[in-house]
Parts: sequence; structure tokens; C-alpha cells
Amino acid sequence: MYSPSIDNLIKAFKKLPTVGQRTAERFVFNLLKSGKKDVNDLILALTTLIKTVRSCEQCWNFSDTNPCAICSNRERDSGLICVVLDPQEVMVIEESGAYRGLYHVLRGLLDASDEESLSRMKIKELLRRIAGGDKESEIKNEVILALNPDLSGETTMLFLEREIKKIYPSVKVTRLARGLPLGSDLRYADEITLGAAIKNRLPAR
Amino acid sequence: MYSPSIDNLIKAFKKLPTVGQRTAERFVFNLLKSGKKDVNDLILALTTLIKTVRSCEQCWNFSDTNPCAICSNRERDSGLICVVLDPQEVMVIEESGAYRGLYHVLRGLLDASDEESLSRMKIKELLRRIAGGDKESEIKNEVILALNPDLSGETTMLFLEREIKKIYPSVKVTRLARGLPLGSDLRYADEITLGAAIKNRLPAR
Repeated sequence: MYSPSIDNLIKAFKKLPTVGQRTAERFVFNLLKSGKKDVNDLILALTTLIKTVRSCEQCWNFSDTNPCAICSNRERDSGLICVVLDPQEVMVIEESGAYRGLYHVLRGLLDASDEESLSRMKIKELLRRIAGGDKESEIKNEVILALNPDLSGETTMLFLEREIKKIYPSVKVTRLARGLPLGSDLRYADEITLGAAIKNRLPAR
Repeated sequence: MYSPSIDNLIKAFKKLPTVGQRTAERFVFNLLKSGKKDVNDLILALTTLIKTVRSCEQCWNFSDTNPCAICSNRERDSGLICVVLDPQEVMVIEESGAYRGLYHVLRGLLDASDEESLSRMKIKELLRRIAGGDKESEIKNEVILALNPDLSGETTMLFLEREIKKIYPSVKVTRLARGLPLGSDLRYADEITLGAAIKNRLPAR
């Protein structure tokens, strides 16, 4: 048995994703070795986080401001909304540099085994935004559904597509292209990806 | 770019071993999702740690008390010292249930590329303890060198063995046995391990 203060911190670290007993022990003893400064930095960062971070009430991303920096940036295309699952995906798309519209963080996927899943998702908020419910008083031109192309992602995208089309038939609903990733090998591509890559082939430049 | 409060916490988490950018992001967004209670638990555990934990000045393990629970346990065999690298190894040996002596946490290994390595190690403290420098006023019977059997561990054990023998020729210095681990496969055993297992073979029971 470790001493109680060490044991408690191990328990707290174990609540983080991918962290088991051995990793949590490494975290604690690493902090003990590196000294009080690193521990205090971590305490300060955690304290600032719960004091500062809030949800942007337009896109439901986490941010220090409401609306967030992206929603309040007038240079972005406010006619375009890209629907993602989590804040991390906003970051990944931003890093690609290929998108200059707005985002909507859905915060959840449809899950038949979890009755609450629908109520946690920001779907009502999305539909209100498409109608121009936030400051831009205009219907959006296009909604890009950018959830992961796995079972629950596909189900949720189908659901959203139908809901949007039902209420706003004029709004364009799109998805990310399927195709071969950079550096991939044809021999190892799955048939659905390869099929889509052939069907949606582009003229060689 | 994430907002500053999120970015700062990501940076603080990245100082932990094995944690890169993506893992640190997962930690932060997991905490944001799970709510203030988990964050406050973590803050409390960290605060308690720096307030409470100290080094046991006999065995140099980390503990909430000085001397620690093991050193102050009168039922343990105080004639035996097991030298380990880190506090985690104390825990592993304790869990084996095979040892009832005391420990000495060396806190470092000999490293030719790091001049400070020798000064960080608790070698002087070990030699003083062997002479009965702490409360037990008697020379120890046996010192078990239980560092990892890799290059720096072996070098350090050789060094310690010589130092101890020089000053206390009557003290027995031992190492952990080498042999085949449970569930292992002879075909994949390295020659040194297999050689030691043959040389130190035991009568079948």
C-alpha cells in the first residue's frame, strides 16, 4: 500500500482515459521527482480551467469566451456550418486550413442503448442555427456533416440529414469525401473506400 | 488554437511521462465532459500530495510519515535491507509477499554521462544504514541488491557490491535470482537467462 496521499492521486489519475494503475503510478512518482513547481503548474492550470472555460452558446465548443473566437470572427463564412462530434475535431479541421466556415459541436452520437443520448446532443440548437437563429439572420447555405464514418457516426448523419431536409429543404447537406488517404496502399484499402474512390474519381491534373 | 485555459492544461499534462499532444487533449476534454467534481478531486489530490508527502529519512521512500510505515514496523526483519531503484519497486516486492525485511530506495543509477547522478543517489545513506546508523544499533546481516538486470542496473550493483564489501566485509551481499519466469517458453529464453537457470537448477519437489 502506498501512503494515502499518493494512493488518492493515483485514484484521481486513473479516472482519465487510457490511464491504468501502472501509468497513474508513473504520473505520481514523476511529479514527486520533478518537484513542487510542476505540481503547482498543474494545480493552477486545472483551477484556471474550471474557472474560465465555458461552452460557446452558438457552436457548443469549449472556449474562454462566449461566443468563441471562431463564432465571433466576422471574416469566416457564416453561411456554412460544419457539424463535428467533439472539440478535438474542430482543431483537426482548423489545422487542415481547408475550411473557413463555422462549426457546430454535436457533443454526442445517437445510441440506441442510451435513452439520454438524444437529449445530450445539440440537435435542436443546430436546427435553430440553420434557420439563422443566432446573430446571422439568414438561413445557412450548407451543412457539412463531418462525424466519423463508423456505425454510430453514419447513423447519426443519416438522422441529421433527414431532420434538416424535412425542415429546410433548400439547405445543402454534404459529407466529407471518401477516398484513399495519402500514403495508403491500394492492396490494403477496404472495398467500400476503394469503391467510393473509383466512383468519385477526379480528372488528373 | 484551443483557448488559453485549455492550452495551458494540455501543456501541463504533456510534462507527464508517455503523454503527448493527443493524449493530453483527451485528458482535458474528458475532464471538461465529466464535470467540475472530477477536476476538483484531482486538484485536491495534487494539493494534498505536495502538502503531505515527504521522504522517509531511513529508506528514502516517499511517505506521509517519517519514518515510513515499513521502517517503523517493528515486526519486520531489521537485519535485512533490499536496495531498489524507485518507490514503485517497493510496492511490487511488497505485493509478492515474499519479503519481510526493510528497503532502501536508491533514487538513481550510475550514469557515466551525468556527473550529478552519483550525488543524487542515496549511497552514503545506505552505507550508514548498513552500519546500523539508524535506530537499530547493529550491523545488517544482508543487503539484497534488487535493481533491474539491465546495463545501468548491473553497473550500479557491481559498484555497490564493491563499496559494501570494502567497508563491511562481513555483510552478505546478494542479488535476485535469475531464471525462467512463470509461463515462459524455453524456445524464447535468452542464453544468459537460460544459462543461469541451468547452473542454478533446483531439486525437483
